[in-house]
Amino acid sequence: MRLIAFGDSMVAGAGDPDHLGWVGRALADRREITLYNLGVRRETSADIAARWPPEAKVRLTDVEPMRIVFSFGANDCHLEGGHPRVAPAESLKNAHAMLTGAGRLCPVLLVGPPPVVDPGVCARLEGLNEHLRTLAARLKVPFIDVLRPLMADGLFQAEAAAWDGAHPGAGGYQRMADLVAAHPAWRAFTGLD
Amino acid sequence: MRLIAFGDSMVAGAGDPDHLGWVGRALADRREITLYNLGVRRETSADIAARWPPEAKVRLTDVEPMRIVFSFGANDCHLEGGHPRVAPAESLKNAHAMLTGAGRLCPVLLVGPPPVVDPGVCARLEGLNEHLRTLAARLKVPFIDVLRPLMADGLFQAEAAAWDGAHPGAGGYQRMADLVAAHPAWRAFTGLD
Repeated sequence: MRLIAFGDSMVAGAGDPDHLGWVGRALADRREITLYNLGVRRETSADIAARWPPEAKVRLTDVEPMRIVFSFGANDCHLEGGHPRVAPAESLKNAHAMLTGAGRLCPVLLVGPPPVVDPGVCARLEGLNEHLRTLAARLKVPFIDVLRPLMADGLFQAEAAAWDGAHPGAGGYQRMADLVAAHPAWRAFTGLD
Repeated sequence: MRLIAFGDSMVAGAGDPDHLGWVGRALADRREITLYNLGVRRETSADIAARWPPEAKVRLTDVEPMRIVFSFGANDCHLEGGHPRVAPAESLKNAHAMLTGAGRLCPVLLVGPPPVVDPGVCARLEGLNEHLRTLAARLKVPFIDVLRPLMADGLFQAEAAAWDGAHPGAGGYQRMADLVAAHPAWRAFTGLD
């Protein structure tokens, strides 16, 4: 199996001294899965929606099953000039385009946005997270919610606060990976169950 | 610093149960470096030469120093219909285009191709490796040779033979990472010395 992960710096694993991020950690010991980690720092849903088709195209193959995971949101919710970088309605339009477009190619899964330290961003993230959950349900795309558990996770929060306010270290990424890897949707998606 | 690694399945770390590959392992504990691993399985120098510019473009930033690493070769040297998938002169043309093109954007480094188990492919790889070394020297691009050491590495060879003839496991990738990480060119390139 080959799994492509599209998203932002959290997908890329920025700040992880082990260069795994939550995606690499959630695939630990799954040697039969080739991971293409295509997280890019600072990217919004609009950036990812524009970038994913050509980057997926050169990685798709018919010699093995393919999977595409998306995860984004925090950069949409950051303010720029007093407004979110991407308005909520636009975030959902972008998410809809990505999930339906990629869903035509192979099974797709959406991991909801992890939190940041800034409470204003987190308040907007909670709204976006709920909208993404509803959209995914409507599109019958599996959705893994990590926002509330990680907002309540002292290690994740402490590591992010100590680094740059957004990215945890090995421990926080492992906590997020544990949430994802234990989720029935992830297990089914990656062929475990 | 942000480091982009372009290459083939060995760059992607195919077969590594830890999903690090030699690139992730060579950057262990370098939390300040964000890794964008853009290895793609089966890609030749021609594929990578066509793909790297747009993929680099969306990842380049001026908020941090950038680095680009290339590593390829084995797929060029595999036979298809009795001929190498990419002829040696074409491989060198592609390498020249990548090293000079990327070199206009940021510091660039070339890691020579690691071996595969097939002795015919390895014989062609030895020729290509020497040509790449010469080209890199001419372009003043640092070059790290891993071919001979890994051909002589029993663990690397045994793991690759036991898996699919090309990709080692955690141990073999670690051996390659150790060669790269200890090289003065890598240390200077990643800002250690």
